[in-house]
Amino acid sequence: MAKNLAPDSTRRSEKSRRAIYDAALALVGEVGYPKTTIEGIAARAGVGKQTIYRWWSSKAEVLMEAFLDLGEQVNRDVGQEPYVIPDTGDLAADLKAVLRATVDELKDPRFEVPSRALAAEGVVNEQLGRQFVAKLLEPSLQLYVERLRSAQAAGDVRPDVDPRIALELFVSPLAQRWLQYSGPISHEYTDTLVDYALHGIAPR
Amino acid sequence: MAKNLAPDSTRRSEKSRRAIYDAALALVGEVGYPKTTIEGIAARAGVGKQTIYRWWSSKAEVLMEAFLDLGEQVNRDVGQEPYVIPDTGDLAADLKAVLRATVDELKDPRFEVPSRALAAEGVVNEQLGRQFVAKLLEPSLQLYVERLRSAQAAGDVRPDVDPRIALELFVSPLAQRWLQYSGPISHEYTDTLVDYALHGIAPR
Repeated sequence: MAKNLAPDSTRRSEKSRRAIYDAALALVGEVGYPKTTIEGIAARAGVGKQTIYRWWSSKAEVLMEAFLDLGEQVNRDVGQEPYVIPDTGDLAADLKAVLRATVDELKDPRFEVPSRALAAEGVVNEQLGRQFVAKLLEPSLQLYVERLRSAQAAGDVRPDVDPRIALELFVSPLAQRWLQYSGPISHEYTDTLVDYALHGIAPR
Repeated sequence: MAKNLAPDSTRRSEKSRRAIYDAALALVGEVGYPKTTIEGIAARAGVGKQTIYRWWSSKAEVLMEAFLDLGEQVNRDVGQEPYVIPDTGDLAADLKAVLRATVDELKDPRFEVPSRALAAEGVVNEQLGRQFVAKLLEPSLQLYVERLRSAQAAGDVRPDVDPRIALELFVSPLAQRWLQYSGPISHEYTDTLVDYALHGIAPR
């Protein structure tokens, strides 16, 4: 159904859904995951608790979906199609383009504050950590797996390389610098990671 | 001065210091960083608050030193000299040995529970995160920098490679899997990271 033909009830639902996402992300960024409650999200979004429970069964579920939605928005704003890694035939260029967009996203305050709150809780709360990985992190890593498999088919990556491990050579350094404040992040930095990962640090 | 010749007051101090470290690590693992207080550490260690303030000015300082001390203990127990990376002339073997020991350390519950509590707080508390990096993480990363510089001198790493970035190709994937529960960690896994980082994933 085209958006402009949506009945009033659907439009109202969409508006509530967006208000709930915004409230959940703002709240978790301000008070942290443990103190974020369905009641608090409902109050901030100006909806009844029952409206939230009609769609989601826990605060973790609301937050995961709010993040998926935010990721789509932020990606679009930085000029990247969400959930796609380009395949131009130039592996290095494609990986560098996606990682540059990720750097921009990680520096976007809309994304940074709530993401840190959720990531921090995931470090000490194994159940939430694994949910976060299954719903948010792993699906985005699988895009790299697919791109690396296509590169293997094209002869640009060795056939004996495990793509799920290989992607970590450029994704994890960026993640660690961001998560732990262990170093500055920039386009130049992620370009370097891609070059080292593809060609190795030993002489050829 | 040999330990068995230490005067009573020094022995008492050493005992208090160890009790304070143990209490700080246990407490932060149980209640998290924000709820850990100097008062709580003192009570659990069975010492007066003033004893702690005589040696340290904040709970962050007590915890950092407790971790340094724990790292030394755990490293010794897994058979590794703390704060040293071997230089046998075989770069791959040396890196693999250190990373295997790190895997064992990360899986040690004495280390895991308090480390997660401190790391989680560092994700949302930039000041603590940067202190954690400066006092605990960066000094251990600098050991890899030195080993890679020595490998450059031996012709085993390309001269144009930045060692501070290169080390992240094998250190950060392990860190991310551990921090975020994004994958299993094992000796085989870290061996693979070293091989990929040295030789690259593109065909030679």
